[in-house]
Amino acid sequence: MKDGTLRYSVLADELAGLIDAGVLRPGDRLPSVRRLASEKRLSVSTVVRALHQLEDAGAVEARPQSGFFVKQRRPERAEPRTGAPPDQAVAVEVSQRLMRVLRANTQPGVLPLGAALPAPELLPIAAIRRLYSRVARRHPKLLAGASHTEMNEPALLRQVVKRSLAWGSALAGGEITVTHSCTEAMHLCLRAVTRPGDTVAVESPAYYLGLQLLESCGLKALEIPSAPGIGVSVEALELATRQEKVAACLLVPNASNPLGSIMPDANKARLAALMAERGVPVIEDDVYGDLHFDGPRPWPIKAFDRAGNVMLCSSFSKSISPALRVGFVAAGRYSGNVALQKTIISGATNPISQMVLAEYLESCASDRHLRRLRGRYANQVEQMMRAVARYFPAGTRMSRPQGAFVLWVELPDETDTMKLYGLALAEGVSFVPGELFSPSGMYRNCLRLNCGNPWSAAIEAGIQRLGQLAARAGSCL
Amino acid sequence: MKDGTLRYSVLADELAGLIDAGVLRPGDRLPSVRRLASEKRLSVSTVVRALHQLEDAGAVEARPQSGFFVKQRRPERAEPRTGAPPDQAVAVEVSQRLMRVLRANTQPGVLPLGAALPAPELLPIAAIRRLYSRVARRHPKLLAGASHTEMNEPALLRQVVKRSLAWGSALAGGEITVTHSCTEAMHLCLRAVTRPGDTVAVESPAYYLGLQLLESCGLKALEIPSAPGIGVSVEALELATRQEKVAACLLVPNASNPLGSIMPDANKARLAALMAERGVPVIEDDVYGDLHFDGPRPWPIKAFDRAGNVMLCSSFSKSISPALRVGFVAAGRYSGNVALQKTIISGATNPISQMVLAEYLESCASDRHLRRLRGRYANQVEQMMRAVARYFPAGTRMSRPQGAFVLWVELPDETDTMKLYGLALAEGVSFVPGELFSPSGMYRNCLRLNCGNPWSAAIEAGIQRLGQLAARAGSCL
Repeated sequence: MKDGTLRYSVLADELAGLIDAGVLRPGDRLPSVRRLASEKRLSVSTVVRALHQLEDAGAVEARPQSGFFVKQRRPERAEPRTGAPPDQAVAVEVSQRLMRVLRANTQPGVLPLGAALPAPELLPIAAIRRLYSRVARRHPKLLAGASHTEMNEPALLRQVVKRSLAWGSALAGGEITVTHSCTEAMHLCLRAVTRPGDTVAVESPAYYLGLQLLESCGLKALEIPSAPGIGVSVEALELATRQEKVAACLLVPNASNPLGSIMPDANKARLAALMAERGVPVIEDDVYGDLHFDGPRPWPIKAFDRAGNVMLCSSFSKSISPALRVGFVAAGRYSGNVALQKTIISGATNPISQMVLAEYLESCASDRHLRRLRGRYANQVEQMMRAVARYFPAGTRMSRPQGAFVLWVELPDETDTMKLYGLALAEGVSFVPGELFSPSGMYRNCLRLNCGNPWSAAIEAGIQRLGQLAARAGSCL
Repeated sequence: MKDGTLRYSVLADELAGLIDAGVLRPGDRLPSVRRLASEKRLSVSTVVRALHQLEDAGAVEARPQSGFFVKQRRPERAEPRTGAPPDQAVAVEVSQRLMRVLRANTQPGVLPLGAALPAPELLPIAAIRRLYSRVARRHPKLLAGASHTEMNEPALLRQVVKRSLAWGSALAGGEITVTHSCTEAMHLCLRAVTRPGDTVAVESPAYYLGLQLLESCGLKALEIPSAPGIGVSVEALELATRQEKVAACLLVPNASNPLGSIMPDANKARLAALMAERGVPVIEDDVYGDLHFDGPRPWPIKAFDRAGNVMLCSSFSKSISPALRVGFVAAGRYSGNVALQKTIISGATNPISQMVLAEYLESCASDRHLRRLRGRYANQVEQMMRAVARYFPAGTRMSRPQGAFVLWVELPDETDTMKLYGLALAEGVSFVPGELFSPSGMYRNCLRLNCGNPWSAAIEAGIQRLGQLAARAGSCL
């Protein structure tokens, strides 16, 4: 071990001790880097490293231009319940309702607490614009080609593989297909391993775009109980795959949507082994994998897969720019069929956008941006939790997200959030009603809030109003 | 009528008369613009307008830096036969063979006569690169958004609608969905109006990517006889839709692939009326509509549709750049479902690429480019016809393309072009074997040649070698 490593760990431990002992309290500003360096006789880079270690551990947060602060403790509230879904697979019919909700949510003047979209000011849009300009000038050959067989920019594959080195088990370049989005990646996987009428296991509650995909492909959904903080129940999945023929699983193991859970590694490992044994392909949506709040980057299920049975889908829409339209899938032993489906259905992905993304990922700016973005999302989620705790009626429960930027809220049993949605929208506040996360119509008293926007008085006021409406909606019934 | 109009028409008629009378003969250079202007006492712009009218009529062609030349008459050869396909729909299984062929065709060192791809030097790649650089700088808001409900850049919609004013009946902005490609557009249409197991009517021979789409969607293909120069037989289609339940038609009415036919307007009108009456949606691939060789821009079937029953699909991959990855569909009364499928399956299309295309289409450079490109494709097709006439065995027939840049060749009955393909590829010459254009395995003695590359000694030598191999393959059997 090098001297430098020891020194920054010692400092990090010392500061963590001060926080645990209550000497430094939530919200307190830490001494400046310069001051710590001078007082402890350490180099500035050693101090910064110590602070980043504390940040990764979730103990402190960086605020732009202000320094490092001890993180607020989250308000204590009961976690939502996620009951028992039906034993049998059901046809999916959410699309029409969902599209009405998503469309209404993007009307001008409506507070954007519906779709899980980051605020543009959180994203490195200026850097991406400069890269478009530069890549177009410097890579004249990129626009000359695009045949049916050249789907992937090698520079982007290299960056994806390089990043995956931190994910427990590196992806292989040859198994990757670049796609237009994480959604397209999941669609190609479903297309590769299912046929209309088949059953696909999903979490309960499940991400609604995944449900829409099943509906569009004529697939049935089998809801598997999932718990806040734990994710999908591997026991329930084991039982389900024994009782019913399941053609595939479609899961969000890291910072699941809407619960924000990260599955424990042991569960991921058991799930990977079990599904390989049963011959059930796993489609894994890892789009939030980089957006965990604390600790090291969570591993995907794919890291535990020895059988090439897991297809990892992701994109950079939640962390870099939703407008890039570049995602990917590492499809293991299904990669040949996935690539074929991509060729047939939509063709290659724009090579300039692929190269822009590759050059951004290669720059040190991207790691810095991700680190800061995680902190900001965590902060926004906490602000939202605080406001819900303050303004929502007694008996309200909420998730404790471990990553990403949505909050799942359970209102008292008698509340109908689809009705509440109409009332709230009329007053300019959007959200996504809970029943859209369940093909069997569970979660009628739940809702999901987007925390992708920096906290503001307008959001605070919106949550206050929503809480009043929820209290009234509950008492009217 | 203005004076200027009269003057250029008079000059064009005069020159056409000289060509008809044989005074100016195929290959002859016309007097220079300057000389014509001076001799006829006309302005330069009037002379240029007259020459463009002759170019549009297919009488002369512009050669860069050399002036205008009387067009070569095409070699006279019998047109290929397109026999009677089976009465019943068949399952489609072309993908695996096709992908092997397309992949082998793009190996380095192989003469690119397979996939229908234009040579990069024919496309305005430098202009597109400059636009990427400019659009990224000038439209900072483009990267900030991309929600689930903002799929189309209004500037691009305007340009598409504006261009469609020349197509007999303008498209409505509200029926258009921007897609990643013409292929994606067709997939969305199939998805919107068919279910797995349904039957879709296609031309015989049919474009192989269309067949792949049917295979991937679990659809059966019903091959409808199509004649060179006429396109699909409306009588046969009428009979077929009476005998069998047809869920949709998937057709290429303008410069069809592989025959290069343009359906007569009367046939298009009858087809539109008939399919509306039967309630059979028409999916129209118009990607080659701008690439007709002579006369005004052919109208799509959609121009004759009064029922909102025709979905027009297109892109700019064959005329501007295959790497842009921007296409569109104007889906008439199916547009709501098509847009929904797009949202579900792949999400929005990159807004920067949409804006780049919009700005290019808005510039006068795009009309100039298209005019020149049509002339060059026509010239390349003619060179290919000439070479095939010269080097291929007696009894060879070939299409007389009215647009685009592929040539369909029928070899003597006993030739197996799949075997020939193996022999040719071993010697570095690619093409697409005829059987890949028919799900029922017709056209085993046919092949398609890509004429997307400027004529060269290497292509001439390749066609000569292919002719020798074809003669030998025919005589061996």
